[in-house]
Amino acid sequence: MSHESRDSFASRHIGPSEPELAKMLAECGYGSLDGLIEAAVPAGIRIDDELDLPSAASEEEATAELRRIAADNRPMTQMIGLGYHDTVTPAVIRRNVLENPAWYTAYTPYQPEISQGRLEALLNFQTMVSDLTGLTTANASLLDESTAVAEAVLLMRRVSKSKSHRVVLDAECLPQTIAVVETRAKAVGIEVDVRDLAEGLGEQGCFGVVVQYPGASGVLREPEFYRNLGAVAKESGALYCAAADLLALTMVTAPGDFGADLVAGTTQRFGVPLGYGGPHAGYLAVRSGLERSLPGRLVGVSVDADGAPAYRLALQTREQHIRREKATSNICTAQVLPAVLAAMYAVYHGPDGLRQIAGRVHALAVSLAEGLRGAGIELVHDGTGATGFFDTVLAHVPGRAAEIAAAARREGINLGLDGADHVRIACDEVTRPETLRAVLRAFGAAENDNLGQAEGDALPEGLSREGGYLDHEVFRAHRSETAMLRYLRGLADLDYALDRGMIPLGSCTMKLNAASEMEPISWPEFAGLHPFAPAEDAAGYRTLIGQLSSWLAEVTGYDTVSLQPNAGSQGELAGLLAITAYHQAGGESERDVCLIPSSAHGTNAASAVLAGMRVVVVACTSDGDIDLDDLRAKVREHATTLSAIMITYPSTHGVYEHGVTEIAQIVHDGGGQVYVDGANLNALLGVAKPGEFGGDVSHLNLHKTFCIPHGGGGPGVGPVAVRAHLAPYLPSHPLLPGAGTGEAARSASVEGGGGRRVGGIGPIAGAPFGSASILPISWAYVRMMGAAGLTSATKVAVLAANYVAARLRAHYPVLFTGQNGLVAHECIIDLRGLTKQTGVTVDDVAKRLIDYGFHAPTMSFPVAGTFMVEPTESEDVGEIDRFCDAMIAIRHEIDAVAEGRWSVEDSPLRGAPHTAEMLAGEWEQAYDRRLAAYPSGVRAKGKYWPPVRRIDGARGDRNLVCSCPPVEAYDS
Amino acid sequence: MSHESRDSFASRHIGPSEPELAKMLAECGYGSLDGLIEAAVPAGIRIDDELDLPSAASEEEATAELRRIAADNRPMTQMIGLGYHDTVTPAVIRRNVLENPAWYTAYTPYQPEISQGRLEALLNFQTMVSDLTGLTTANASLLDESTAVAEAVLLMRRVSKSKSHRVVLDAECLPQTIAVVETRAKAVGIEVDVRDLAEGLGEQGCFGVVVQYPGASGVLREPEFYRNLGAVAKESGALYCAAADLLALTMVTAPGDFGADLVAGTTQRFGVPLGYGGPHAGYLAVRSGLERSLPGRLVGVSVDADGAPAYRLALQTREQHIRREKATSNICTAQVLPAVLAAMYAVYHGPDGLRQIAGRVHALAVSLAEGLRGAGIELVHDGTGATGFFDTVLAHVPGRAAEIAAAARREGINLGLDGADHVRIACDEVTRPETLRAVLRAFGAAENDNLGQAEGDALPEGLSREGGYLDHEVFRAHRSETAMLRYLRGLADLDYALDRGMIPLGSCTMKLNAASEMEPISWPEFAGLHPFAPAEDAAGYRTLIGQLSSWLAEVTGYDTVSLQPNAGSQGELAGLLAITAYHQAGGESERDVCLIPSSAHGTNAASAVLAGMRVVVVACTSDGDIDLDDLRAKVREHATTLSAIMITYPSTHGVYEHGVTEIAQIVHDGGGQVYVDGANLNALLGVAKPGEFGGDVSHLNLHKTFCIPHGGGGPGVGPVAVRAHLAPYLPSHPLLPGAGTGEAARSASVEGGGGRRVGGIGPIAGAPFGSASILPISWAYVRMMGAAGLTSATKVAVLAANYVAARLRAHYPVLFTGQNGLVAHECIIDLRGLTKQTGVTVDDVAKRLIDYGFHAPTMSFPVAGTFMVEPTESEDVGEIDRFCDAMIAIRHEIDAVAEGRWSVEDSPLRGAPHTAEMLAGEWEQAYDRRLAAYPSGVRAKGKYWPPVRRIDGARGDRNLVCSCPPVEAYDS
Repeated sequence: MSHESRDSFASRHIGPSEPELAKMLAECGYGSLDGLIEAAVPAGIRIDDELDLPSAASEEEATAELRRIAADNRPMTQMIGLGYHDTVTPAVIRRNVLENPAWYTAYTPYQPEISQGRLEALLNFQTMVSDLTGLTTANASLLDESTAVAEAVLLMRRVSKSKSHRVVLDAECLPQTIAVVETRAKAVGIEVDVRDLAEGLGEQGCFGVVVQYPGASGVLREPEFYRNLGAVAKESGALYCAAADLLALTMVTAPGDFGADLVAGTTQRFGVPLGYGGPHAGYLAVRSGLERSLPGRLVGVSVDADGAPAYRLALQTREQHIRREKATSNICTAQVLPAVLAAMYAVYHGPDGLRQIAGRVHALAVSLAEGLRGAGIELVHDGTGATGFFDTVLAHVPGRAAEIAAAARREGINLGLDGADHVRIACDEVTRPETLRAVLRAFGAAENDNLGQAEGDALPEGLSREGGYLDHEVFRAHRSETAMLRYLRGLADLDYALDRGMIPLGSCTMKLNAASEMEPISWPEFAGLHPFAPAEDAAGYRTLIGQLSSWLAEVTGYDTVSLQPNAGSQGELAGLLAITAYHQAGGESERDVCLIPSSAHGTNAASAVLAGMRVVVVACTSDGDIDLDDLRAKVREHATTLSAIMITYPSTHGVYEHGVTEIAQIVHDGGGQVYVDGANLNALLGVAKPGEFGGDVSHLNLHKTFCIPHGGGGPGVGPVAVRAHLAPYLPSHPLLPGAGTGEAARSASVEGGGGRRVGGIGPIAGAPFGSASILPISWAYVRMMGAAGLTSATKVAVLAANYVAARLRAHYPVLFTGQNGLVAHECIIDLRGLTKQTGVTVDDVAKRLIDYGFHAPTMSFPVAGTFMVEPTESEDVGEIDRFCDAMIAIRHEIDAVAEGRWSVEDSPLRGAPHTAEMLAGEWEQAYDRRLAAYPSGVRAKGKYWPPVRRIDGARGDRNLVCSCPPVEAYDS
Repeated sequence: MSHESRDSFASRHIGPSEPELAKMLAECGYGSLDGLIEAAVPAGIRIDDELDLPSAASEEEATAELRRIAADNRPMTQMIGLGYHDTVTPAVIRRNVLENPAWYTAYTPYQPEISQGRLEALLNFQTMVSDLTGLTTANASLLDESTAVAEAVLLMRRVSKSKSHRVVLDAECLPQTIAVVETRAKAVGIEVDVRDLAEGLGEQGCFGVVVQYPGASGVLREPEFYRNLGAVAKESGALYCAAADLLALTMVTAPGDFGADLVAGTTQRFGVPLGYGGPHAGYLAVRSGLERSLPGRLVGVSVDADGAPAYRLALQTREQHIRREKATSNICTAQVLPAVLAAMYAVYHGPDGLRQIAGRVHALAVSLAEGLRGAGIELVHDGTGATGFFDTVLAHVPGRAAEIAAAARREGINLGLDGADHVRIACDEVTRPETLRAVLRAFGAAENDNLGQAEGDALPEGLSREGGYLDHEVFRAHRSETAMLRYLRGLADLDYALDRGMIPLGSCTMKLNAASEMEPISWPEFAGLHPFAPAEDAAGYRTLIGQLSSWLAEVTGYDTVSLQPNAGSQGELAGLLAITAYHQAGGESERDVCLIPSSAHGTNAASAVLAGMRVVVVACTSDGDIDLDDLRAKVREHATTLSAIMITYPSTHGVYEHGVTEIAQIVHDGGGQVYVDGANLNALLGVAKPGEFGGDVSHLNLHKTFCIPHGGGGPGVGPVAVRAHLAPYLPSHPLLPGAGTGEAARSASVEGGGGRRVGGIGPIAGAPFGSASILPISWAYVRMMGAAGLTSATKVAVLAANYVAARLRAHYPVLFTGQNGLVAHECIIDLRGLTKQTGVTVDDVAKRLIDYGFHAPTMSFPVAGTFMVEPTESEDVGEIDRFCDAMIAIRHEIDAVAEGRWSVEDSPLRGAPHTAEMLAGEWEQAYDRRLAAYPSGVRAKGKYWPPVRRIDGARGDRNLVCSCPPVEAYDS
């Protein structure tokens, strides 16, 4: 190693040392990394020049630079409201969840036996949402409130018996929610009718109605208003959705109790920092009967092989990875980490604590209202008549709004500006009496010594919540910090994450999430900004977003990048919407066919449908590549309607297809646009650029290639990158025109609230820059790797996959390879022959890998009955060998089944995973305990023990239970 | 609970809820906490008024206040040197060790079977020190470099055959080291002769010599110099000690290779932040033959019941808790957490990385020297002649030193000021070429583009290190961050700490270490200050120290508090030295008898000896109290020589003794001073004040009562608190007169380096304010609890101990009780009868508790054959009941032995602890696997598994191995 390299972050990020690389290259038959890459990657797409990026900073240098950037942010006291409220993250939760790799490096819980900890945390989340909303089933989070409402609208459209295409939105809906719904509705032909619901739902029919509860202005109406809406909706065959504030729900009637079929919203104010807009966990709950139409992840209770209760993802057949274009949504990633934070906030505070926080917030708002009224200021909803409020007061100050907001800023407070005549003041958990005194000063009102001590409330009569919630033991048992700490540790210990060992998931790129990348997201300068704060408060963010956008454009070869999409699926949708908008602008509205190869990820098809496209499948050849003849035929067939092709590169088969430039040419010649799915970008950085080898648009997955941790199933960030001709059609934002891009970040300033001027395709997420607060992670990664580091990472990732293929080839067929018999950054291990011969399934091997101390590779994607293995550049050869050795040992176990030594039913494969508790009991298996628990190569000290045996998923789907089971369920 | 309490930190810190408290009180037969306290605590010592402290802040308020305090610190670029050098803590180590409760809430590894992770980390530490120093055995850390040298001097005195009382110290020794050695030497009649070693050792004999390597001025001399010193020392029967810089040792000859018998120093610059002086891990290594004279903790390798290698503390019979006044030292606490950080720094960088860091530092220093010389500035050791340097350059600038230092400060750099004519510039890991350019500007020298690129070195010829070090696999295997992360997680998972469950250690007060108390110590404003930085840089620290000192004085009833002692043992020693100094000042130098009750902790006696006192034991009565008749007799007997009595209150028997005021009166009447050991202060806060009920001086344990975590065996902080007449005799510091106290913090400014003006008893630690960087923890605790919270905590702690006594009394005798049959905050469970009857030992029960998921209570202290249980206020009743249930279930197991169901040899008690691996093997025990591993009440999910079976400690002491064993040792 060179003098410099030992010091470099790249040498820490990349797993294998120089001698290990040499060993791996030798196994693959190559003498150098460059030789391997030249053999693997088609010459036609390889770039010649090094990436144009700032030279790599050390970890300390990057941290110092980020501290300077952060210092340019000014986190004021935020009283803007509109669905984002400041909150206190309990330190015990911040340290032991948000800052704990055991939580944040976990993958989506597709292997439930080794994910019981976060599944329990998500079940707490679902129970919390379902209890507070008064509905039977809540999912395990959505991306934010605005997209949750959009999903609710689409759900209502799917379910409603009404023939109408109209959905009615409360004029009191959050402006960003209205805009996101409009973006999504337009694409699929839904008409959005925004109206004052006090004036009824209008004459025409509608399939759904959405009420904001409380409204954006803070308003709460009399109970009859909400009940009547439900009755009217029901009469017309429409469904009824409330967009509800979870903290308010601790004090006011649950929407489920006034007839709502669905409730959507955000859990942000349950302990999740504002973070300039995200990530936060949105939620969606439905009444009984709608659960099978619910989009997103859903955790349910089932049983394991011993009949003990065990959690797993329920009803996966709804999801896009199985149902493709017929899925309930294109959502893949949830917001697991923020959802866990919010759930744990509820666990820590319990129902009494939440009620107390809500009561204090309300009392502050009430006394603020009194203070303003006392100063002769008119309140739009004053809480003394039929309408009331929970935490937000809207003051009518004709012509004075800007001046009052400016005065408040001098006090260090951001108020909500609603046109020239209204000021919105939202109280929250961090509001203090002295905050209100400063607000009153800004209004020129007299100060008041009794702020926060208001007698009585400002809730409309009859709207106070009756009855309890969060009655489950879990919301009472962890009240002290010691108890909470142990609960969090105990749950983390049940799970397998990257901090225990390799997670070789094809297409999911489970690489290192370095501590120095993660530390800055806890800094108050990044955590404390409201997404609609004046642009001058966010100068640091804008620098960071500008730089990161330009770096992402450079590495992908595109011209413009929008960071707004807060998941890969949303980036994908945004990209497709941009294509549609482009065709429409060119007068070719009829172009609506999206070609999708048969090997594509289900999300591609689901996104295309949500973008209003028709999906046409293109065949693949037997060696896994796109069938060029079929492609030409399909292009000809849809000559006038061809909109786009969606391809993944390297292909979902893990191969650098040679035909990619030709594919692009064919589609371009046919008038279509080329969408390159960025899921496999980890095989391209520094080696090839999709924007240069034919792509018009890509989405990236910052949580794959750019080191944002998977968080147990989110947050993800899915920027969309486009060539210049598509740039005008990138996401925008009603409160920040042109939001999302670095260009916008550099120049934009936020409009006064309430404006609805939207460019581009409209917003795709609630916040202008999506999940801004985790962008420092990817910024730090690029900054510390530099051009050479990123390129090395790509090459080592490709080497690692080829090394696995080389080591396993003698034991399992490797399904697809490209030129020179090489794979890209992942390889497919084919188990189908062995399954046919012995009955041992991919599931058996996946569960047996747990006994060997591994998370299974991706199962049955893109080909059923196979494993897709992606070791990434971060695993050293010791760990990769340990995995290969385990796979080979398992192959010998399969052979023993083939030889009749064990029946498959009574083999360690089918018996897997084996718990420690099994060892303590009677042993009736045909193999012995040691083989079960300590197969070859498993270290005895610190072995990972799964807490449950194999889980019966189907049974859980038949008997759906999606909230915390009573404690007695565990007595067995 | 009141409206406010749910929100208060006290309600999170204190484990039991109100209903739980009621249940516990009922079990004890009391109706209220106050009733219990009135019954337990003698009326004569109870205070009437609430403590005078600021009202409790919430966690957010306290954090905000600390942020404002921190903002008053100015961490400049530190080039002062003198044993403190800036360093980079790798983020992966900071996050996963320093900020991970699994590491920092662990206790001292007295139960080795559940401490294998940190024992391995400490073995890495010992291997690192022993390899780099070239000696065979290193201990597991000492408190800092200065005290390590002092311990070395005492060791040399014990071991040397010379009759001389003189030790020779290099004039190049660090000034704080010289001063600490003088403090310690004076007390035991050792003469310290500080001289230029180039002029020989002087005419008189000596028992030891200490050379600083490199010297405080940076100097490195020719190899013959160091070799000759060793030879001369040997001739005169003296031992030879080097105080060596560990980073320099990667480049220069190991002291073991030039004849040193001992090497002492600090490991601070191996990744441990400066922290305004501490905590850092000092080290002490010795040549073969001296290991049994080594002070401090020593980790060694032994085997478990299966013959597998296992770690545990070796040679504990040297230590004060066993050997009392004959111990090798009074040291109890080590600096485990900083030692783990330093060891992991070496593991992460490996020998090549360390060498590279050292090489870069050296190259920077060399090119700085060139730059200065080029500008005509004279260097004291210029590296071109016989003498050289490693990282520190001393410039001779007659009359200009202050002006140059001031110019450097304008560049943001602190240089070392050595009188009016010399400036010291120490390079370190964070020094960059641009730093040196700024230094050159401050000197008025021309800038230089090639800084850091120097050809050649400035090491004296022949002094370059030959041969390798850190050859063990562990220093190569964890080079990538992923590998390091997993290594740290894997080690943590082997251990049991407070984040898993209760650690009911009598006298050690293992209470909550709240996340909000811990977070600030990672802030750069606290981490980045050099202890000798100008006072104006540390304004925030001085505010914090001033406030904390005054709060500690208030809660203890003393007048003045010094925060300098960096362990309880050092606070104790400081207090005794103050007493001696007070007697001397009063013309009563003959007063040297220290009365110590027979029940006292061994440290008391060891400290008294080190303070130059004679220990006279006072008997205890059969009910555990001090025998007042014997006390009166001893006071009479030593009428003219009585110096002090050391008592613990509540007593080490866990009882509020009634006689305490009378005891104090008797001793005061006899002309003695009363030392109240603060170990049990957790039973007093807000209830009684030792400074008011008779104490003249106490030390406190911030790591017991004031929430600094135990860190696996340190850092501790042991402030000494005194009444006004002893205040003039508190520790001071050569570089900061009157250092340590809040008064000093408010007023003092640091002297120019090299001054040796020392008041009081001199310094007791190397840094003026000891382990300053962890004081925010205790500050936050007091600030967030307030008077009412602290008092509640005391009362609940007392209730919890009485609840345990009440629940267990029917199953085990409770040994000592005070008035109304009540204990204080801990209780003694007597197993001696059962042992006699059945052969089941305390050890058996302690190890069996591991199977039940607990750390054992304190064993055989203060009474052999018993357990001392201290549940603390932080455990909720669920956890306390789980412990009591386990103890009761174990009692039933003992009964089964008594009834002959099992022999003791083949019982689950003797077989404990049981590993998971045992379950997988053949099973020959008389009891079944389930009983072994899952006795009643043990949850199957997330059960803690010990990684080894019971360890054979004696065997390890017979075959002492104190560095990492070869990997092959584990092949069995």
